[in-house]
Amino acid sequence: MSAAGSQFLKAPNSTLDESAPSALAARVRSAVHVIGAGLLGASVGLGLRERGVDVTLEDQSPTTVALAADYGAGRLRTAQDPEPALVVVATPPDVTADVIERALTTYPNAVVTDVASVKLAPYLELLRRGLDLKNYVGSHPMAGRERGGAIMARADLFVARPWVICRDHETPAEALALVEDVALDLGATPLEMTPEEHDRSVGLVSHLPQVISSLLAARLIPASEQAVGLAGAGLRDTTRIASSDPELWVQILGANRAPVVDLLDAFGKDLASFADALRDPEQTGAKRRIADLLSSGNRGVARIPGKHGSSERFTSIMVLIDDTPGQLGRLLTELGELGINMEDLRLEHSPGAQIGFAEIAVLPEVAERAVTDLVERGWRTL
Amino acid sequence: MSAAGSQFLKAPNSTLDESAPSALAARVRSAVHVIGAGLLGASVGLGLRERGVDVTLEDQSPTTVALAADYGAGRLRTAQDPEPALVVVATPPDVTADVIERALTTYPNAVVTDVASVKLAPYLELLRRGLDLKNYVGSHPMAGRERGGAIMARADLFVARPWVICRDHETPAEALALVEDVALDLGATPLEMTPEEHDRSVGLVSHLPQVISSLLAARLIPASEQAVGLAGAGLRDTTRIASSDPELWVQILGANRAPVVDLLDAFGKDLASFADALRDPEQTGAKRRIADLLSSGNRGVARIPGKHGSSERFTSIMVLIDDTPGQLGRLLTELGELGINMEDLRLEHSPGAQIGFAEIAVLPEVAERAVTDLVERGWRTL
Repeated sequence: MSAAGSQFLKAPNSTLDESAPSALAARVRSAVHVIGAGLLGASVGLGLRERGVDVTLEDQSPTTVALAADYGAGRLRTAQDPEPALVVVATPPDVTADVIERALTTYPNAVVTDVASVKLAPYLELLRRGLDLKNYVGSHPMAGRERGGAIMARADLFVARPWVICRDHETPAEALALVEDVALDLGATPLEMTPEEHDRSVGLVSHLPQVISSLLAARLIPASEQAVGLAGAGLRDTTRIASSDPELWVQILGANRAPVVDLLDAFGKDLASFADALRDPEQTGAKRRIADLLSSGNRGVARIPGKHGSSERFTSIMVLIDDTPGQLGRLLTELGELGINMEDLRLEHSPGAQIGFAEIAVLPEVAERAVTDLVERGWRTL
Repeated sequence: MSAAGSQFLKAPNSTLDESAPSALAARVRSAVHVIGAGLLGASVGLGLRERGVDVTLEDQSPTTVALAADYGAGRLRTAQDPEPALVVVATPPDVTADVIERALTTYPNAVVTDVASVKLAPYLELLRRGLDLKNYVGSHPMAGRERGGAIMARADLFVARPWVICRDHETPAEALALVEDVALDLGATPLEMTPEEHDRSVGLVSHLPQVISSLLAARLIPASEQAVGLAGAGLRDTTRIASSDPELWVQILGANRAPVVDLLDAFGKDLASFADALRDPEQTGAKRRIADLLSSGNRGVARIPGKHGSSERFTSIMVLIDDTPGQLGRLLTELGELGINMEDLRLEHSPGAQIGFAEIAVLPEVAERAVTDLVERGWRTL
């Protein structure tokens, strides 16, 4: 089954067509109220306003909300504004539950959603407080940028991203539809999950890789200059996300402790078993365990969906490129002229070098022709 | 200090200038003999022959050596050939020591080098066998491809890559110079290290990331389709090298057991400490430990040299691109026209989407102008 399978609620938008009618604008007459005017909140505001939806903004910090309003993400609420039909909570994870409670209380007829990256903890906290949650629908757009703040906000931040929606058993269809419309209006692909499924899933595909990458990168601190000088694409790829914002990740990991701790424990067990096998390869089954883990890695990575939600694998072509502006551009333009669609592209550099390689992934059936045609045009392929 | 600092033996070649005189051809009158006609051996042969050096080939498998010879990597040795001045051993790691011993015995006046990715184990094994090692100079070009075999060989496989050379205290200057010349002739950058330094260094920057990436990818095998459907660039980056050849890695890890086991143990300790802090964040110092690890990841990743051997960081620009052939090419051509040099490029896709983002790294001082100019030309930046 492909990732585009049954869990999609509606067909996703594939382009940012601003002229398409906004489902949300048709459904709600009042403004959408966004609480928290950082990267996500301001991006929701910008995106909805582009679709013709009226957006009001609120933030703990008067400076932040003024900045987001100046930026075009929405306007401040006035005493004349009627109760909003929809409230989007986009605050840091550690205050999400408090802000949701306040929104449910202040606007008892509004549907309230949030965009926090962990879904079970705030939900359980709201249940514990005895709140009526029929108007609350948690959600999580799988989008972000390395730096936060309204100034980094973009109307198209959510385009072509999964947007997970966690409905309660009590959630009325209209409330769910409102949150789906937000996702669709912003160009995202709504997916339905339970809070538990969501948290376990992001624990595995996002939180575990973050911790592992940070642990790996941290081991480079005491390394010699000589050692890091031998670094290649493998180390760069595995440690890239280790440059993420520590403050945000402290909150995310704290809010998803149980699944992440389980995943870390399981990872630690696998690691210890592998290290033991390597330490004493003559013990029974040790060599088998080493080979099995490496093969399992092959099979695991093959499960990650590619560009179009499929698991199909592509063929890589390596092309030598000089380090001059426009060389890669010419290469890709020529690929376009040859009618060859590039499925992925990666650049590889070496320390001290003025030359590099472009690794181009193409469908296996066009790979041979691509190489022949490129070589004919004077490119050097590897 | 940059990676282009003191450990460079000579200035590296920055382009593949085949018309430049070959230092090696001037130094040796006889053929260079390559034992092992797989990816690395055949690439050495192809590269040296392009520089006008006579190359003879040998392989355990008659089919393999015939293929490599047909491919242009060299010719078979005949009884009329004089003793070679240089022998390059390019066999799988598990037979490297045996083949080096045989080469030293068969050609007592030749300098013998090897290209195995682990350097201490074969060296100690040769010492243990009581061989005179004045003619042996171990080396390791930091180059490879995901698939092996002579058919994958390329003359320019080593261009702009570090080539580590491990000299013995007894190594005469002429023997060292010969191996340096091989590296330089093939476009690589020779670096000098002890076998211990080399093995610890590649353990850290190559073998540890390989095991960690395989462990991470292996955890995806039991995951739900739903969970892997949420995968983003972070998971893809951290697990990319998990698709490497298991058979080769069994040998590499086996040959570098001690440093890799130490690194895995240290990683496991860091992991357990982090998991404990997250399990019980109220214990003394737990919150501090969580935040410290994430910050250490930031500092560690900043130590990895960038494109030109420096540690300087670039500014990223995200540009929205349609999934049509040539769109990315046009973007990069326009960057070239604008005189903006791209330091790195990464593509990001979403499952189910026909739209993606190009993340372009540029020098911080040109980032603002790049965005302005691109937007002016109709590109959508994030």
